[in-house]
Amino acid sequence: MTTPREIKVYRDLMGANAEWAAKTRALLAERSIAMVNVISAPGSGKTTLLERMIPALAGRLRFAVLEGDLETTRDAERLDALDIPVYQLLTGGSCHLEAKLVHHALLDLPLDDLEVVIVENVGNLVCPAEFDIGEAGKLAILSVTEGEDKPVKYPLLFHEAVAAVITKIDLLPYVPFKLEECRRYLAQTNPAAPVFEVSSLTGAGMDAWLTWFTAFVAAHR
Amino acid sequence: MTTPREIKVYRDLMGANAEWAAKTRALLAERSIAMVNVISAPGSGKTTLLERMIPALAGRLRFAVLEGDLETTRDAERLDALDIPVYQLLTGGSCHLEAKLVHHALLDLPLDDLEVVIVENVGNLVCPAEFDIGEAGKLAILSVTEGEDKPVKYPLLFHEAVAAVITKIDLLPYVPFKLEECRRYLAQTNPAAPVFEVSSLTGAGMDAWLTWFTAFVAAHR
Repeated sequence: MTTPREIKVYRDLMGANAEWAAKTRALLAERSIAMVNVISAPGSGKTTLLERMIPALAGRLRFAVLEGDLETTRDAERLDALDIPVYQLLTGGSCHLEAKLVHHALLDLPLDDLEVVIVENVGNLVCPAEFDIGEAGKLAILSVTEGEDKPVKYPLLFHEAVAAVITKIDLLPYVPFKLEECRRYLAQTNPAAPVFEVSSLTGAGMDAWLTWFTAFVAAHR
Repeated sequence: MTTPREIKVYRDLMGANAEWAAKTRALLAERSIAMVNVISAPGSGKTTLLERMIPALAGRLRFAVLEGDLETTRDAERLDALDIPVYQLLTGGSCHLEAKLVHHALLDLPLDDLEVVIVENVGNLVCPAEFDIGEAGKLAILSVTEGEDKPVKYPLLFHEAVAAVITKIDLLPYVPFKLEECRRYLAQTNPAAPVFEVSSLTGAGMDAWLTWFTAFVAAHR
């Protein structure tokens, strides 16, 4: 009698991912840490937003950042200047972060000294939204240079997100971006999620965004 | 005796994809059609570039466009105004186009009346670069609002591309984009590929780009 061979299918991959995500949720609950999974297209300004947010909240929240990328340590090097724990997670060609890799990185962080872990996922509007990494919430970032239709063209992320941040609003005078239409698409895809408009360059809109973020962290630790 | 069960792995998926891509290459060679696979992040201006290019080349090249998206027919509707055959390919949540879907769409096009088929892939810098769809060449699009580091952070696409087009150069005065650094990264990732700088809004750089594109099509039909 032959031993049945294990057939690895996508469902199993997702099942294993869900188990690691559950372990991560338990670990973060025990340590009273809120983890936020930041997702956007490449170049939407995720790293620049963190460069603005984290110093603005210094002394009020203790941060660590996990930087997801296919290649290079560029983003981690940028954030290293902030003097907080920053680890680079390289996916080696994969288009998203998986829960297991994030879990092992968390175990290496000084968890006793942290209140918030920000995971900056791989720049991709599709695949990262499909993989739960054990976060308290996914944050969807969209820049005004990308066009107002992205929430309906890439609905899964915007549907799952706890909030959406529209970045680079300092460029609004120079781009054909219909802000009201974008807000309507966002509301249609996810009526519950608040939407913030910010410029990491000028600081516009940053106060309202940081107030919401701070309250979200307090509610999910 | 049990029949061995077929184990579907990623290699088989890629193998089947390669077979469909080869069928597509044979079909296009027979009909003397050049197919170009246009890939970028979401919102880099792929559709807007096509809206500018195709009318500019009307009377010189006969086009059709296959529009790849996860959801919605918005991009196909935009290009429908150009009075050329435009089909929308919906991936239903998948992050890239596969060769089989493209092949079947091609069979529905009026191939006798065409010289160029443009495939606008799903907005994603990662996965579409991994899937050969039988194209004559991949075209990498990058907008100046995304940051100069994308060629090193998402190297596969830029390495495989026959040319790179830097879009939205009208925004250069307003964004912290290092053009020379971007060109250096592109040259490092792919020394052979020419790089064009264009604005679909103002038309800047369009002549040089269209000259190269026309020559590429002539050489690959």
